[in-house]
Amino acid sequence: MENFTFQSPTQFIFGSDTHKRVGKYVAQCGGKRALVLYGGGSVLRSGVLHEVLDSLDAAGVDCVTLGGVQPNPGSSFVYQAIEAAREAQVDFLLAVGGGSVIDTAKAVALGTPYAGDFLDFFRGKPATEALPVGVVLTIPAAGSEGSPNTVITDEENKIKKGTKADCLRPRFAVLNPELTFTLPKYQSACGISDMMSHILERYFTKTPDNAVTDRMCEAVLLAVKDVAMRVIIDSEDYQAQAALMWAGMLAHNNICGVGREQDWASHALAHQLSALFDSAHGAALAVIFPAWMRYCLDEDVERFARLAANVWEVPAGDDKRQMALAGIERYQEFLRGLGLPTKLEHLDVPEEAIPQLVELLVAANGPTVGNFKKLTAADAEAIYRLAL
Amino acid sequence: MENFTFQSPTQFIFGSDTHKRVGKYVAQCGGKRALVLYGGGSVLRSGVLHEVLDSLDAAGVDCVTLGGVQPNPGSSFVYQAIEAAREAQVDFLLAVGGGSVIDTAKAVALGTPYAGDFLDFFRGKPATEALPVGVVLTIPAAGSEGSPNTVITDEENKIKKGTKADCLRPRFAVLNPELTFTLPKYQSACGISDMMSHILERYFTKTPDNAVTDRMCEAVLLAVKDVAMRVIIDSEDYQAQAALMWAGMLAHNNICGVGREQDWASHALAHQLSALFDSAHGAALAVIFPAWMRYCLDEDVERFARLAANVWEVPAGDDKRQMALAGIERYQEFLRGLGLPTKLEHLDVPEEAIPQLVELLVAANGPTVGNFKKLTAADAEAIYRLAL
Repeated sequence: MENFTFQSPTQFIFGSDTHKRVGKYVAQCGGKRALVLYGGGSVLRSGVLHEVLDSLDAAGVDCVTLGGVQPNPGSSFVYQAIEAAREAQVDFLLAVGGGSVIDTAKAVALGTPYAGDFLDFFRGKPATEALPVGVVLTIPAAGSEGSPNTVITDEENKIKKGTKADCLRPRFAVLNPELTFTLPKYQSACGISDMMSHILERYFTKTPDNAVTDRMCEAVLLAVKDVAMRVIIDSEDYQAQAALMWAGMLAHNNICGVGREQDWASHALAHQLSALFDSAHGAALAVIFPAWMRYCLDEDVERFARLAANVWEVPAGDDKRQMALAGIERYQEFLRGLGLPTKLEHLDVPEEAIPQLVELLVAANGPTVGNFKKLTAADAEAIYRLAL
Repeated sequence: MENFTFQSPTQFIFGSDTHKRVGKYVAQCGGKRALVLYGGGSVLRSGVLHEVLDSLDAAGVDCVTLGGVQPNPGSSFVYQAIEAAREAQVDFLLAVGGGSVIDTAKAVALGTPYAGDFLDFFRGKPATEALPVGVVLTIPAAGSEGSPNTVITDEENKIKKGTKADCLRPRFAVLNPELTFTLPKYQSACGISDMMSHILERYFTKTPDNAVTDRMCEAVLLAVKDVAMRVIIDSEDYQAQAALMWAGMLAHNNICGVGREQDWASHALAHQLSALFDSAHGAALAVIFPAWMRYCLDEDVERFARLAANVWEVPAGDDKRQMALAGIERYQEFLRGLGLPTKLEHLDVPEEAIPQLVELLVAANGPTVGNFKKLTAADAEAIYRLAL
């Protein structure tokens, strides 16, 4: 266990109907004029956006709205939103949506008070100042509602890259599981893959002695495993959606990651699929993570065997490597059972694209990615090939 | 899963040597003049207090010190400390110690700006204003470093009672496992019993559908079980002490309790032992909790059986009641193995004291305590008798 600091100051307001009180929370944060960001038409059709705007109005918070955030959100929309935020002189950003909308709001929060290009913060400039961000979550997946992270695609250079800073943790997040009832099954499945990946990136570490954090990781993975199929079968299963919504936050606010080096190679590999082929993030992870596991298995067979036993109920045995492989196989079966892709071809990514994927990976991350095993370009290529 | 709000804004600074930077954290919170509270002579002898004062000095924070907080901290010391805080016009409270010192600091934080009797807040008055509190933790047990709670004994009326308020969550907590190396084995064991009890009070609920929170409870219990004996065998086992220190916080900042009704009857029953016989809190819980479990078993045999299987490794079987009982037995063996008492007589509490204990319990809590089973005075008496 390494030294660490941890602070997760976000206020979580969880439960039925909570989004109808969002105006109160914006006002409590001092917000007087908000830019409300959202994605497609679903929050319009469902009436959620209307209820949010009513609540802002009732709390005396002025607002302007801007819809159209896309999955794998891009820099051009962020530039446009920064302009809108400046023009309207907003002092608060309210994201109504999932990870793409929240990440966009965070990028706008960084860019609005900054004289230069907001992408500077995605190229290494430390972020210390941002407008406050609040969230009404509609997709449990990215965990951005409780995290200091944001990921944006630099569309000009086709680079999908993240940054993080404490000032980007949302002030509050309203989590109403009912808002997820209309999610398509495939999107729910992608969310499940995404949140499990967030934990696995933290689970695979070479830092020894992680009694508490290891158990926390396994706990959230077990809970997600326990309820996942319920939301695929019945998207209006409130309790299962509630469990996923809370798990998605816990998977990424770093309570499951303190005190250890984390990996994050699979995310880097998956990001290139999204940047080049616009693959859904969770789907890309469903393809990449098992391939990464097989490739990195011999880095620490015991750790893979532990995961297999404690999460995937693989019977304990003398052959740890066999246990580990059985665990990976069960994870892949689980993802397949949710209707997710397991091979690059399911994402319409051809073998010929691999050199370009590797090139993009190196451009975005430098000569190596990951920590559990520091992957070179050759390692990355081998993992992409394992995923064919 | 019920609706809830959760916010744990405390900044945790975890690891070796971290207490030597505490001045910086007080200054970051705006503290200019601090009252430093501590307990006995151990923080003087170890040099920790000296290092803390040096750090405050280096950060330009003035301070006054007040030692002498006792276990099961009492109201008379709080009155004295409030006077000291007012006289010195402090704007910050720094607790250097364990739960007793932190709880005292919170009571002083409430009482200093309040014109009336600070005990009003322990008799039902909602607390909304308090001086900021920071913590240098030396005993992993109470979880007060991350919780909104404080428990003080009203010495005049011999009532030990708690209150909680968001304004009582510490601004920061410095958690250096090395500071626990000098703890006597018995005190470490009491801490382990205390933190496990904090989780069990949350685990025993009748709120259905708690996939995530149940798993989180089991995770922290498992982690504590995994490392507990290591600190008893070798108090300088850094990694085991580190795991306990972090687990103690997680056990009580309510991340293991959201979305459900919680019980807290065992704490109420144990508090009376401390109020009347000055029993160590963790020791009192080690005696009371297993008795409470046996008494309440039939409220929900499945839940007890689940705990037995998932934490105490009781083999799954058809007879859930037998599994449940085996789990309680294993918990009691575990506590006994740590050197803790398991009967009232080990605490020098005679059978004849039971009527007075029940009387005090009713005076402090009203006609019933607990939620998993609402215990009447007759139930409470039966549980005390089971603990004989």
